[in-house]
Amino acid sequence: MGWKRGWRRKLTFLFMPCVSSCFSAAEEEQQAQSKKGLKKQQKEAEKAAKKAEKQAKVAAEQQSAEEDDFAKDRYGVSALVQSQQKLDRTLVRVQDLTPEKADQLIWLRARVHTSRAKGKQCFLVLRQQQFNVQALVAVGDRASKQMVKFAANITKESIVDVEAMVRKVEQKIESCTQQDVELHVEKIFVISQAEARLPLQLEDAVRPDGEGEEEGRATVNQDTRLDNRVIDLRTTTSQAVFRLQSGVCQLFRDTLTKKGFVEIQTPKIISAASEGGANVFTVSYFKTSAYLAQSPQLYKQMCICADFDKVFCVGPVFRAEDSNTHRHLTEFVGLDIEMAFNYHYHEVIESITDTMVQIFKGLRDNFQTEIQTVNKQFPSEPFKFLEPTLRLEYTEGVAMLREAGVEMGDEDDLSTPNEKLLGRLVKEKYDTDFYVLDKYPLAVRPFYTMPDPHNPKYSNSYDMFMRGEEILSGAQRVHDAQLLTERAQHHQIDLEKIKSYIDSFRYGAPPHAGGGIGLERVCMLYLGLHNVRQTSMFPRDPKRLTP
Amino acid sequence: MGWKRGWRRKLTFLFMPCVSSCFSAAEEEQQAQSKKGLKKQQKEAEKAAKKAEKQAKVAAEQQSAEEDDFAKDRYGVSALVQSQQKLDRTLVRVQDLTPEKADQLIWLRARVHTSRAKGKQCFLVLRQQQFNVQALVAVGDRASKQMVKFAANITKESIVDVEAMVRKVEQKIESCTQQDVELHVEKIFVISQAEARLPLQLEDAVRPDGEGEEEGRATVNQDTRLDNRVIDLRTTTSQAVFRLQSGVCQLFRDTLTKKGFVEIQTPKIISAASEGGANVFTVSYFKTSAYLAQSPQLYKQMCICADFDKVFCVGPVFRAEDSNTHRHLTEFVGLDIEMAFNYHYHEVIESITDTMVQIFKGLRDNFQTEIQTVNKQFPSEPFKFLEPTLRLEYTEGVAMLREAGVEMGDEDDLSTPNEKLLGRLVKEKYDTDFYVLDKYPLAVRPFYTMPDPHNPKYSNSYDMFMRGEEILSGAQRVHDAQLLTERAQHHQIDLEKIKSYIDSFRYGAPPHAGGGIGLERVCMLYLGLHNVRQTSMFPRDPKRLTP
Repeated sequence: MGWKRGWRRKLTFLFMPCVSSCFSAAEEEQQAQSKKGLKKQQKEAEKAAKKAEKQAKVAAEQQSAEEDDFAKDRYGVSALVQSQQKLDRTLVRVQDLTPEKADQLIWLRARVHTSRAKGKQCFLVLRQQQFNVQALVAVGDRASKQMVKFAANITKESIVDVEAMVRKVEQKIESCTQQDVELHVEKIFVISQAEARLPLQLEDAVRPDGEGEEEGRATVNQDTRLDNRVIDLRTTTSQAVFRLQSGVCQLFRDTLTKKGFVEIQTPKIISAASEGGANVFTVSYFKTSAYLAQSPQLYKQMCICADFDKVFCVGPVFRAEDSNTHRHLTEFVGLDIEMAFNYHYHEVIESITDTMVQIFKGLRDNFQTEIQTVNKQFPSEPFKFLEPTLRLEYTEGVAMLREAGVEMGDEDDLSTPNEKLLGRLVKEKYDTDFYVLDKYPLAVRPFYTMPDPHNPKYSNSYDMFMRGEEILSGAQRVHDAQLLTERAQHHQIDLEKIKSYIDSFRYGAPPHAGGGIGLERVCMLYLGLHNVRQTSMFPRDPKRLTP
Repeated sequence: MGWKRGWRRKLTFLFMPCVSSCFSAAEEEQQAQSKKGLKKQQKEAEKAAKKAEKQAKVAAEQQSAEEDDFAKDRYGVSALVQSQQKLDRTLVRVQDLTPEKADQLIWLRARVHTSRAKGKQCFLVLRQQQFNVQALVAVGDRASKQMVKFAANITKESIVDVEAMVRKVEQKIESCTQQDVELHVEKIFVISQAEARLPLQLEDAVRPDGEGEEEGRATVNQDTRLDNRVIDLRTTTSQAVFRLQSGVCQLFRDTLTKKGFVEIQTPKIISAASEGGANVFTVSYFKTSAYLAQSPQLYKQMCICADFDKVFCVGPVFRAEDSNTHRHLTEFVGLDIEMAFNYHYHEVIESITDTMVQIFKGLRDNFQTEIQTVNKQFPSEPFKFLEPTLRLEYTEGVAMLREAGVEMGDEDDLSTPNEKLLGRLVKEKYDTDFYVLDKYPLAVRPFYTMPDPHNPKYSNSYDMFMRGEEILSGAQRVHDAQLLTERAQHHQIDLEKIKSYIDSFRYGAPPHAGGGIGLERVCMLYLGLHNVRQTSMFPRDPKRLTP
């Protein structure tokens, strides 16, 4: 593939070199800086401002020198891509840059990850998602002095189109994912120019806690990350986390679809609070009020009454809890399951635990790169699980805790610290990070929970835990309208408000059970992370509504 | 498989016959009837009440006769299934009842679809979702007179466990899906008792409009259906519609996953109206106010700026429009796509149209039974599409309409009747029910739409249509912060409220385009239905918030 004369005119049309305008943006910087500006950040800002000044000067010089520049059509800032024309040009992916491509002239679009000028050369690292490659612009018969200067002045995170010769390297480039080749740049055009001052540095954002502290290297605090989420999501760690999350959803659905489940879509705007009146967001709905569903609970049960037999849904659930903890969000993604069973709700527990095991296996087998990428920044032990899944009864759990010195009554709910402690005890004894705790006290569960047939103080309900934290809550549900009415009255729920729900059970309802899984928690705990905001792209909590 | 003596005791334990209590419910009927009660419904109600009385009498007689009943352990009302024990019993699916199962004794759980007593026999039709089978309880050495009476009195829609011998029949049973066999019932236990008076009859709910009118047969109006959605969803038509809908979601995701798209989860509670201030629901959020996302638009674009390259999401979108039409809902499911492209947004149009074509093909090839089931009640022409998909420019569409006598300006938006007319003209000329209308006037599109590079009155935007109705709206987006600011100002949008969105484009943003598809509309139009409420399980409109 050679550089063809015919293209030159086309490129001149498409990529109008307009170097002077390309630095004006740097002078107008208006983006928000995290208010908790550290001294270090200020210094960097001053440095960046100086750099921008220098760039402007360079640009001016460059323009005057342009007429003498033999390479002037080989670089520049492209006009805004507005779909002016269809270019018959193949862009190669960075991850495909291997020695097999050696000595080919290719086109590529990527971000400028870093750049370093050195005499008559400029070394760039070009990045595409989690992949990057070294590129060299050097004065020679393809690049002029001016072109090298131009390249050296392209701001980090800008997007460029590059035409380059792929060359094998003698020594592996350890700092890049593509270690065996580098690119010798013959043309470079800026497609989208980043402002000179970034609100956070990507290399800081992936630095493990504590690393490089002595050299005064910064890490990025969580609020700065979340305030500038679009940049933070570009890091290898974030890319890995959310690609894995996409995988969890897919594994969840594929496993259930194979088991004969049907996907349903349930309404989020509802007329009455589905799980009692507390912790529910109110919506103004034309001339009346409505609520945001705290779970698809009532609707997935109604689908069981409507003969869908086995259903699942993936969607947002809303909790107006004023909890500012590492594991609470006001909006999260629920992976919900509901299923008719024949004679015992353990049939459903087995379906759910098998689904979880299929997810764990799928992640282990297909997302190893992502797991290792996250581990580099946030080290954790590999996630362990048993087959079949360990199931303990609540009373057994309480006994283990008492043995470890915890004082609690038979019917007390588990506190978060006790859940974690129990997780550690279970890990020690059974070597698993995933287990089911079955038969919770009836008193601590919602009104629609089926009481235990043998002991009215307990119930046919269960939680599932990963690394000692709850990721699923579920139960056999009451499928008899009369018993359901009694239980709702016992919980002092206004029957009028759940009338259509209770009525669903009057025309024949099969025994059924189910559960709701928190997607962000599953991802957080599988990866051994410590804050659910790390696994929510745009987290919502009582204090955060943006971006 | 014979009837084993050892089981008898177990069954006696599990299925405590308590016949007297099983009819008391009928006397207490309190469920809501549609207020628009037709005379016919009143008559039915009286009939049902009389039947219930009779049932009570029968029950009393039965109890007195019970001691003499040799079959008394072979039928009854089961105790509430509370997971008392694990039964090692295989339940056969109705759809698996074929001649290969002939002369086998099987257990089955199903609903009583209809029942008809005739002398010493009772014919039942047992239903599981869209499948049903005939069952016979006849006085003989397995069933007593009392048992036949009991079976005859089981209310429609009750769920029963049946042990029966599968028998081949000589003449096909035309009224059932399982036409070659019937069941000779040896035991029958009621697992969940339906109230005697149903709010609607399933056979009325699947009757095509106009059919049987002369015989005074009823159909069910939409409000009655939706008020009693749990019953309405049990019809073969509803089962087919929502299984097909589940299929659309799966085909959408699988196609995009194969193309390298990543699934994202975007927040629904947002701090500012994403598409301007109109038509947005307000949520009270702790001490402040928030909004419900009118689309994932801003967030999916931010994911593109965050290097996810190609993303999709499936989730609820909310529109506070006071529109009571056949195609508007206040909450519907959006299938959203956003994708970086290289040089021209037609790259994205091609990805989206190919995805739609894969959905159409998947439905045609894998959901033929469901399509035909729906067609029985709602006849429609098979859905036609071309490969590659037809793409017309807006000006071409306007010219076709003008030729057909419509008066409209070049930059006027298409009214709904004109969209439909254009759909018919396109169908006549090109024989397709699916096409793209490209290059809309800039003035009628949202602020983030990229203007046409050659004519500032037009834009790089498109709608897609099925059977003449819009199912997708999309465009190339402005990916330059400065131009985006100008466009937002032009639309008088408060820049402060979309600051984090605009800031996303300051640090390098690739050219990108996308679109949002309405799931309910796709299902409605593919099946040739006429109201989007038919393809929303629990529809929400300005007048409906329940069930």
